[in-house]
Amino acid sequence: MSMVEDLCRRAHAVRLAVQELNTETKNAALRNAADALEQHAGEILEANNADLVQARENGMKESMVDRLTLTKERIAQMAKGLRQVADLPDPVGEVLDDFTRPSGIRIRKVRFPFGVIGIIYESRPNVTADAFALTFKSGNAVVLKGGSDAICSNTAITKVLRDSLTASGVPADAVNLIESTDRKDTAEFLTMRDYVDVMIPRGSAGLIRMVVENSRIPVIETGSGNCHIYVDKDADLDKAIPIIINAKTQRTGVCNAAESLVVHRDIMDRFMPRFAEAMKEHHVRLHADDESRPFLPGAAPATEEDFAKEYLDLDLSVKTVGSVQEAIDHINRYHTQHSDCIITENKEVADLFLRLVDSACVYVNASTRFTDGFEFGFGAEIGISTQKLHARGPMGLKELTSYKYLITGDGQIRH
Amino acid sequence: MSMVEDLCRRAHAVRLAVQELNTETKNAALRNAADALEQHAGEILEANNADLVQARENGMKESMVDRLTLTKERIAQMAKGLRQVADLPDPVGEVLDDFTRPSGIRIRKVRFPFGVIGIIYESRPNVTADAFALTFKSGNAVVLKGGSDAICSNTAITKVLRDSLTASGVPADAVNLIESTDRKDTAEFLTMRDYVDVMIPRGSAGLIRMVVENSRIPVIETGSGNCHIYVDKDADLDKAIPIIINAKTQRTGVCNAAESLVVHRDIMDRFMPRFAEAMKEHHVRLHADDESRPFLPGAAPATEEDFAKEYLDLDLSVKTVGSVQEAIDHINRYHTQHSDCIITENKEVADLFLRLVDSACVYVNASTRFTDGFEFGFGAEIGISTQKLHARGPMGLKELTSYKYLITGDGQIRH
Repeated sequence: MSMVEDLCRRAHAVRLAVQELNTETKNAALRNAADALEQHAGEILEANNADLVQARENGMKESMVDRLTLTKERIAQMAKGLRQVADLPDPVGEVLDDFTRPSGIRIRKVRFPFGVIGIIYESRPNVTADAFALTFKSGNAVVLKGGSDAICSNTAITKVLRDSLTASGVPADAVNLIESTDRKDTAEFLTMRDYVDVMIPRGSAGLIRMVVENSRIPVIETGSGNCHIYVDKDADLDKAIPIIINAKTQRTGVCNAAESLVVHRDIMDRFMPRFAEAMKEHHVRLHADDESRPFLPGAAPATEEDFAKEYLDLDLSVKTVGSVQEAIDHINRYHTQHSDCIITENKEVADLFLRLVDSACVYVNASTRFTDGFEFGFGAEIGISTQKLHARGPMGLKELTSYKYLITGDGQIRH
Repeated sequence: MSMVEDLCRRAHAVRLAVQELNTETKNAALRNAADALEQHAGEILEANNADLVQARENGMKESMVDRLTLTKERIAQMAKGLRQVADLPDPVGEVLDDFTRPSGIRIRKVRFPFGVIGIIYESRPNVTADAFALTFKSGNAVVLKGGSDAICSNTAITKVLRDSLTASGVPADAVNLIESTDRKDTAEFLTMRDYVDVMIPRGSAGLIRMVVENSRIPVIETGSGNCHIYVDKDADLDKAIPIIINAKTQRTGVCNAAESLVVHRDIMDRFMPRFAEAMKEHHVRLHADDESRPFLPGAAPATEEDFAKEYLDLDLSVKTVGSVQEAIDHINRYHTQHSDCIITENKEVADLFLRLVDSACVYVNASTRFTDGFEFGFGAEIGISTQKLHARGPMGLKELTSYKYLITGDGQIRH
């Protein structure tokens, strides 16, 4: 049996034991694991250093090296994350429905864990602890496959977590890491349908596409965000400008940042000067269509590619439209079904936009940056789903569960 | 552009128009379509006859020919099905959650259609009308790919439905049939990720496996059922025997029929004589393990294959166990996560079974035959999901929808 199959089988073998853990046991195990991460910070930092040496040898960009770097403070953050998840309500066992049929059978729909979750991710080693905490609290076993760059860090973190689980009297196989940098192992992981119930990729658009195209296991796509802000002709510019600045510039490397602006022709004269000034002040590079470019000194011409692009940087495309319908069509064509916003004081136009823009999160007069499990009050987030199956938008603990029907009778048969 | 891509694009182009139809318009269109099926019964029967001639020429088994055959009564049944769906509540627009965050943004989670659903099915032409009714009522456009054997029937039915939609003032592209018997077209259909949001296969285990293994579109697996009944040592045999007879023999060709019996060693002496007699009376062929076979005159030895088999016939495997835990392990090893049942008067044992058997529907003292959208009170059924993502168990109209978050503010930005 291969290493990958062995790990997946081990996770599968303990999935019901993990499901059966009561809330107190899970919370105690999470708090113990948090303490263990801090106690073993030295070993984790040493392992991380090995990754960093290798990364620099490979000529990794400094921004990527920063993502890979752990510090004592970052380990304390990871530990804090585990303690926060311990404080969240346990989703397992929630009764979603309970009814009795004319035949006398009682049907309860009850929240249960998936069983085994697979997570494939890239550089940041803190994902190892985060993903463990969320899958464990939601009653699942997890098999992790992190990025090659972080192999030593991930191995060290997983060892601390597993040893801590054992000390807490919980099966260590609740968390498993595929300790490999071989792509063949990732490919095999995606075929482990008999043992893994759902696969969640976290990372770049390329990683997600690879998983979607190759997985035999059902996938929850956590996606890239080409988020749009549409400034309607009935927009209040005192709302529009701060929202655009916030959505574009507060953090540029995140999936809920704005990448595209759409503006109604009739408001250009009033809007464009304030917009141009704000963007200049925040060093945003504009990629504008022919109609808007004359208002925007220094803007580059927008290409078809610009409209579809997730820049993840201080860039913004600009498109002019003549109606809200044209704005909706443009957005539905180029967006990634993540988060899109309209700025308008016209309730009818806002309602049309809310209904017809086909995204996980559709906004009126608020920044797309709110698309986030914490901002939504979920207390945690494993990612933002941009697909429509199972979960859409921010995914917290509940979204890491399924349900089953429990049917009780006293001898009923079907007629 | 290929024919398949053209159809999928057309469905995609009207998906928001279908989503926007109000309940009255959808219901009227469904009732008009029901009338149209009855009015055009002659054309449909003629087309069906062409399929039947071809099927007999190809040497199709008579049981399969029966599935393929339409009659005036069966067309009336199809029409009745459409009218029943018209009478069901509309799931679209249901507010699933509504809350305001400290920042002042209001977040509503609202039920919306998927958009475009793909359905791949086999012989029965009535699925064409059923699948249209359920996807249409839930606000979706649909692209259908039926079995080659039913190509003329499906084409005729779809033409009647499309003409009727046009007459009702609804886009005909809400329902589309891939009029092809070429497997290459099915393969292409499974790649239409840009236009189709979810793919639902209905039919044999082989068809479902093919779709799961090849689809680039998220799949909801509607599955085969190797359903188990476990007779515990604390079983009431007056409940056990009728439930086993019902689950095994009421209809054998359905996915919620029992295929496997598991029995506790301690109850064999009391149970086996009554069980053997009942099975003999109902002409059930038994495939029994070594321990139970001496009690069952004429039983064949059970092989590993028997335990895993969905017979869909008057066959039943029999396995002896020494504890409820052993029963659970056996069931979780061989079942298809569809429906499994325990017969017991012991509440603690029943609760353990309910929690640890990893199936969509877990029963205590009732027939597995109740796993059905109508029996559950959903009023309709597109299939029984045996996967854990999105929907589990019987799928009605709600299970054919997704949701999105509508967020409204008055200028909020993230800090």
